[in-house]
Amino acid sequence: MKYLKERGYQIMEKEKVNVVGVIGAGRIGRLHINNMRNMPNVRLKTVSDPQADHMKDWFSESGVENLTKDYKNIISDPEINVVFICAPTSLHVQIITEAAKAGKHIFCEKPICFSDENTCKAHKVVKQAGVKFQLGFNRRFDRNFAKTKELVKNKAIGDLHILKIQSRDPEPPSLEYVSHSGGIFMDMSIHDFDMARFISGSEVEEVYVVGGALINPEIKQYEDIDTALITLKFENGLVGVIDNSRQAVYGYDQQLEAFGSKGSAKVNNEKESSVEVLLKEGVKSSNPLHFFLERYNDAFIEEVEQFFEAINNDEEVPCGFVDGIMAQRIASAAKESLLTGLPIKVEKYQ
Amino acid sequence: MKYLKERGYQIMEKEKVNVVGVIGAGRIGRLHINNMRNMPNVRLKTVSDPQADHMKDWFSESGVENLTKDYKNIISDPEINVVFICAPTSLHVQIITEAAKAGKHIFCEKPICFSDENTCKAHKVVKQAGVKFQLGFNRRFDRNFAKTKELVKNKAIGDLHILKIQSRDPEPPSLEYVSHSGGIFMDMSIHDFDMARFISGSEVEEVYVVGGALINPEIKQYEDIDTALITLKFENGLVGVIDNSRQAVYGYDQQLEAFGSKGSAKVNNEKESSVEVLLKEGVKSSNPLHFFLERYNDAFIEEVEQFFEAINNDEEVPCGFVDGIMAQRIASAAKESLLTGLPIKVEKYQ
Amino acid sequence: MKYLKERGYQIMEKEKVNVVGVIGAGRIGRLHINNMRNMPNVRLKTVSDPQADHMKDWFSESGVENLTKDYKNIISDPEINVVFICAPTSLHVQIITEAAKAGKHIFCEKPICFSDENTCKAHKVVKQAGVKFQLGFNRRFDRNFAKTKELVKNKAIGDLHILKIQSRDPEPPSLEYVSHSGGIFMDMSIHDFDMARFISGSEVEEVYVVGGALINPEIKQYEDIDTALITLKFENGLVGVIDNSRQAVYGYDQQLEAFGSKGSAKVNNEKESSVEVLLKEGVKSSNPLHFFLERYNDAFIEEVEQFFEAINNDEEVPCGFVDGIMAQRIASAAKESLLTGLPIKVEKYQ
Amino acid sequence: MKYLKERGYQIMEKEKVNVVGVIGAGRIGRLHINNMRNMPNVRLKTVSDPQADHMKDWFSESGVENLTKDYKNIISDPEINVVFICAPTSLHVQIITEAAKAGKHIFCEKPICFSDENTCKAHKVVKQAGVKFQLGFNRRFDRNFAKTKELVKNKAIGDLHILKIQSRDPEPPSLEYVSHSGGIFMDMSIHDFDMARFISGSEVEEVYVVGGALINPEIKQYEDIDTALITLKFENGLVGVIDNSRQAVYGYDQQLEAFGSKGSAKVNNEKESSVEVLLKEGVKSSNPLHFFLERYNDAFIEEVEQFFEAINNDEEVPCGFVDGIMAQRIASAAKESLLTGLPIKVEKYQ
Repeated sequence: MKYLKERGYQIMEKEKVNVVGVIGAGRIGRLHINNMRNMPNVRLKTVSDPQADHMKDWFSESGVENLTKDYKNIISDPEINVVFICAPTSLHVQIITEAAKAGKHIFCEKPICFSDENTCKAHKVVKQAGVKFQLGFNRRFDRNFAKTKELVKNKAIGDLHILKIQSRDPEPPSLEYVSHSGGIFMDMSIHDFDMARFISGSEVEEVYVVGGALINPEIKQYEDIDTALITLKFENGLVGVIDNSRQAVYGYDQQLEAFGSKGSAKVNNEKESSVEVLLKEGVKSSNPLHFFLERYNDAFIEEVEQFFEAINNDEEVPCGFVDGIMAQRIASAAKESLLTGLPIKVEKYQ
Repeated sequence: MKYLKERGYQIMEKEKVNVVGVIGAGRIGRLHINNMRNMPNVRLKTVSDPQADHMKDWFSESGVENLTKDYKNIISDPEINVVFICAPTSLHVQIITEAAKAGKHIFCEKPICFSDENTCKAHKVVKQAGVKFQLGFNRRFDRNFAKTKELVKNKAIGDLHILKIQSRDPEPPSLEYVSHSGGIFMDMSIHDFDMARFISGSEVEEVYVVGGALINPEIKQYEDIDTALITLKFENGLVGVIDNSRQAVYGYDQQLEAFGSKGSAKVNNEKESSVEVLLKEGVKSSNPLHFFLERYNDAFIEEVEQFFEAINNDEEVPCGFVDGIMAQRIASAAKESLLTGLPIKVEKYQ
Repeated sequence: MKYLKERGYQIMEKEKVNVVGVIGAGRIGRLHINNMRNMPNVRLKTVSDPQADHMKDWFSESGVENLTKDYKNIISDPEINVVFICAPTSLHVQIITEAAKAGKHIFCEKPICFSDENTCKAHKVVKQAGVKFQLGFNRRFDRNFAKTKELVKNKAIGDLHILKIQSRDPEPPSLEYVSHSGGIFMDMSIHDFDMARFISGSEVEEVYVVGGALINPEIKQYEDIDTALITLKFENGLVGVIDNSRQAVYGYDQQLEAFGSKGSAKVNNEKESSVEVLLKEGVKSSNPLHFFLERYNDAFIEEVEQFFEAINNDEEVPCGFVDGIMAQRIASAAKESLLTGLPIKVEKYQ
Repeated sequence: MKYLKERGYQIMEKEKVNVVGVIGAGRIGRLHINNMRNMPNVRLKTVSDPQADHMKDWFSESGVENLTKDYKNIISDPEINVVFICAPTSLHVQIITEAAKAGKHIFCEKPICFSDENTCKAHKVVKQAGVKFQLGFNRRFDRNFAKTKELVKNKAIGDLHILKIQSRDPEPPSLEYVSHSGGIFMDMSIHDFDMARFISGSEVEEVYVVGGALINPEIKQYEDIDTALITLKFENGLVGVIDNSRQAVYGYDQQLEAFGSKGSAKVNNEKESSVEVLLKEGVKSSNPLHFFLERYNDAFIEEVEQFFEAINNDEEVPCGFVDGIMAQRIASAAKESLLTGLPIKVEKYQ
C-alpha cells in the first residue's frame, strides 16, 4: 500500500494539506521538491535560494509557487507550516532556531551542526517550541534496512552479536568538497553511525578507527582519510564494524549484516539489472546501482511521507533530534580515535 | 539519463507539448494518466469513461483537466493530438478507426482485436491516415529485457539457438474474466509471443502447444487452459519454448534465457527485497515482485516516453501495428494447436 | 553419514565383500574401478579389455588383481559375483545374457541396447536368472536432483504442473563419435528422459521435438541434430520440456525446475568456485563445473554404493531394467517426431 | 589436472615414494591417513597413538602397515622419511625437535606451540637439520581462497585497501575443550590471521580486539570469549577486520573480501546443495556446508600433495615455520588487546 502510494497510484483518503517552504534549492532540495509534487497532502508554496536568479528555468517547471532569494520570506510566511532545511550545514542551527520559534515543523538534512554545543542549544529551542523535527537519515526508510530492523527487533535472529556495515561511495568527492565536508566521519560515516543505532536499538559506547588516505593522499592536508574501518562497542554487549571507502569503482556499495544467536540477516546491494551473461570466460552480472539517488529513491520519498504522517497524526517522527546528536558524537569520537590511535568513549546525551 | 528522467528529476530541454486524451479510466488508463502527470511534454486534457459518474473523487486528484462519459468528445476535440486507448478490446477497432481518421496519434493497449480480419482493416486505416500507432507491449521496455535484446542483436552471445521464456502470473483471474479474455494465448501468452519476436528478431513459423486446466478445471468450459508449454519454430532456425502458468504462488515470475553459439543471456526476476535471512533451517530470501505494476512500473513509463519521442521527432514507434498482428496470429495458431494436438503454421503478414 | 562414507572416512561396520569383475577399461570403466578402490565391501578381482596389452601401466596402479583381454574369463570365474559392463553398447545384450545366466549381479552403463526387441529379450533373461541389474543413470544420485525428487514426492511443491530440464554439454563430440552414438536422443537426451520419469514419478505418453544442426551442420549426414527442444506429455497430466545443446561454451549446464501448485523447486548449476570479482565493468563469477566427471563425481560413487547395498540386503536396485527400456522408448519416439514433424506416442512396457 | 589428481583419477607419472609415519590417530591424523591412501607417491608405514590398544578395528582397514603406542618407533625407523605430527599441541615442540634431528621431513598441525620462545627454539632446530617443515594451514589450499590470493597478487583488484574475513564455526566447542584450547585467538582465529597474511602478502603491525562471551558466559572462567571483532593494521597501509563467532547456527561460515583500488574479490560460502525452493512465504535455499571436513576436504588433500611435491622436487613448502610463528604472535597480541582494551603492536620475526 505504502509502496503504491509512493508510486502515486490513486489515493482516495482526504488528508490535511501541509504548506511547505523549502530552504535551499541544490541537489537535495530539488530532490525533495520533486518527490513532494506527487503527494496529495502537500502544497509547495515557496523555495528559497541565494542563487535564485540563476534558477528561473528550473523553477518554471518545478511545481513550486514562489521562488525567493531570502529564506526569511519562508520563515515569516504564516501560511507555511512546514520547512525543509536543505541549506549548507553551517546555516542549519540559525534556520532551525528561527523556524522553530516561528512554530514551523522542520525537516532538516544531516548533520545538524559540526558543533555539539550549538546542536544541543538548537535542540532546546525545538523542544520548547514543541514543533516536529525530523532528520534526513534517509537510509532508515530503505525497504531492505527497514526489513532488517524489524527482523532484529522481533528477535528473528535471536540476540544481536555482531553488526557489520559496508558502506562505500562509487567516487571520491572533490578536494574542494572535502575541505568543508567536516571530514569522512561527519560527512559519510554519519549515515552508518545512525544505521548502527537504528538496527541495534542500542547506544554506541566506544569507537576505534584505523584507516588512511589510500585513494588520494592529498586529502591528508585536511586531516582527513578516505578508507576507514570503524569498530563499535555497544551498551548491550554486541560489537560492530563499519568499513567505509570513498571509492568502490564497481558502484555504490551499501550492505549490512546483523548476526545473532539464532541466525543472520543480510542486506545485499540492489543491482542495475537482473541480467546474467554466461560466456566462455565466466559469468557476468550487473554492478550495484551506481548513484545514491537510484538506490535510495524510494527511501527519500518514504521518509517525507512518514514525516507528514507524523505531523498530521501528531505522532513521534521516525528519526528525531537526538538521533542526530548521537550520530554526531560518534563521528567526533571516531575523529579523535583516528588522531590518537586509541579507542574513544562516546558521551551519552541526557 | 533516461532513468532519471523517468523518475522526474529536473529536465531542462524544452519539448513540444502533446495534448492527450485517454479513453477508458480503468486500471491501465489510470496508470498511464498517473505516469504522464510528471512528463513535461504532456498536457492531460480529457479522460473519458462510461462510468465517469462514479469517478469524481479520483478525477479531482488525477491531474486531468476534463472528465467525460463519451469518448467521442475526445475524438472531436481538435486540440487533442494524441489518444490513449484503454477501453475494452471489443471497442479497439472502432476507436482506432475514428481516432486515425481524426488525425490523432494512437497508443493502444493489447490485443488490438480478437479478429484477424478486423485488425488488418484497422491497420489499413491507420496507414492511410499516416498517424503514429504504438501498441502497449510494455515488457519490451523493461531494462532487463531491453538489455538482453541488445546483447542478442550485437551477437554478444553469437547466433541464437534456443529462446526460453518463463512467464507466470501470481494468481489466476476470475472465471468471469476468463470468459471474455480471449483465452490464455490471446490474453496472457500474447506478451510472450511479442517478446519472442522482439528478442529473436525473427518470425515464428510454427507453434505447438501442450497444457491443461491443472489449476482450476472449471475453465475448461471456456475451452481454456491455465498451464501451457508452447514450442516455437522460427524462420531463421532457432527454437523456442514458453511456459505459462496462471498461478505461481511465489509471485510474478518473468524470466527469459537467450542461448546462443557464444554464450547465454539470462533475465532473472526482480525481488521484493535484497535481504537474506540465514537460519538453522536454511536461507530465506524474498520472492519475486508480486504485482505486474511493480515489476513493470518503469517499463510503463518508458514505453510512453518513447512514444512521445517518436511523435516529436517523427520517428518510427518502437512497437507498431504489425507487432500486434503477428502476436495475435501466433496466439490463434497456439489455440488451434491446443485443439488439434498438432503443430500449426503461423501465417505471415505482407 | 552417506556423504562421509563416500569421502572414505573410517567405516566400522563389517559388510559382506563383493568380488567384482569389470568388463571394459575405457573412461567409464576406469572411473568405476577408481571409485570402488575405497569401498571396504568390494574386492576388485579382474578387469577385461580387448586393448589389455596397452594398459599395463594403468593396470599396475589400478588396484585390480588381474587384467585379461577376454571378458569370458570374468563370466566363468565362480568367485566373481558382480559384473560391471562398461563395454560398447553393441555388446551389452550379449554380455548381460551370459553374465545373468552365470548368476552374476550386473551393473550396466546406458543405453542397454539400440534395439527395443533385443533389450526386452535381455530383460527376460535377467528376470529369469533372478540377479540384480542396475543401470547407470548416475544423475539420479546427484544430491541436488535427489533432493528435488524428495520435494516432489513429499508434495512440498504441491502437484507437479511443469517440469523443465536444461541439459547442455560443454563441447560437441567428434563426428566419428556421433556416427555410432545412436543419435542425440539415445546418447545424450536419454539421461534427461530418465530424469523426467524419475522426478515426476509418471510415465511419458507423447513426445514432440523441434531442433536442428545449429552448431555443426555436418552431423546432418547421420540424421542427427545438436540442438533440441523436446516437449513431453505425461500420463498424470503434467507437461515437460527438455532443452539440449551439444555446446554450451560456458560449461556443463545441468539445471532442472519442478513447478507445482504450491511452489517450485529449482536445481541450479554447481560452480567452479564461489569467488565473485566486482570491477568497474561488472561482476564476474565462475562458470558451471565444466566436466561431467566433476559435476557428477559424487553421484558416480553413490550409485555404486547403493548397488552394493541392494545386493547385500537383497533389496530392489534404485534404477532398474525397465527404467532403461522406457528411456530408450522415449528416445525412439523423439527420433520419430524429429523425422515426421509430429507428436509421437510412447509405447508402455508391460 | 590437480583437481582430478585429488579425486584420484589415474596418474601415470612415476614419482619417488615417500615413507610416512603419522604421530597421533585422532580425527585429523585419520583424515590425513585416509587422504594419503590414494596418493601413489606415498607409503603409509606406521601410525602411533597412546590409545593404540583401542584402535584395532580402525587400524585393520586404515591401509597403514603398522600401529604402535610409542611415537619414538617412528622417529627411530630409518626407512621413514616423512613424519606427520597430529599429536596434542603440548607435544609438538618435543616431537618436531626429535624428528628434525632424525632428518625427517615434517608436516605439523597448527599451532606449533603456545610459547613463542619454544616455538622459536624449535624453528632453529629445524633450520639446522635442513628438513622440510610444513604447517597445516589448510585454508590456503581451498580453491576459492587460492584464487583470491592470485587475484590480489596479480593486482586484478588494484592495490588492496580493505581485507574482511568472516569466519564462524557452526557450534561452540565443549568447555572442556575450551579449557586447554589456548583460547579463541590461538585455536580458531589463528587460521584467519594466517589467511590475512596469505592474502595480503603483508605483515600485521597492530591488532585491536572487541568481543565477549555472548554465546556462553561460562567460558569467561578461562579468560576466553566466543565472539570477536579483530581489527588489523598492516605494514603496507591496508586495514583488515576479522569477525569470529563460535556459533553460526546456519553452518560453517567462511567468507572473505579483498577490496582494492580497482575492485573487489569476494569468497562466498559453498552450499549444501544448489536447490532453491520458491514458496508463497519466500525462497528457501541451502545453508553453507556445515562441517569443516566438508568445506575443506579438497584443501586437506591439496596441502599434503603440495608438501610431497616440495619434498620430491626440493622446493620451498607453501606454508612454513615462520608462517606459524607470525600467526601465533598475532594471536598473542589479540589476547593482550582483549585484556587491556588497547591496540597492541605485533613483534616482527627476524
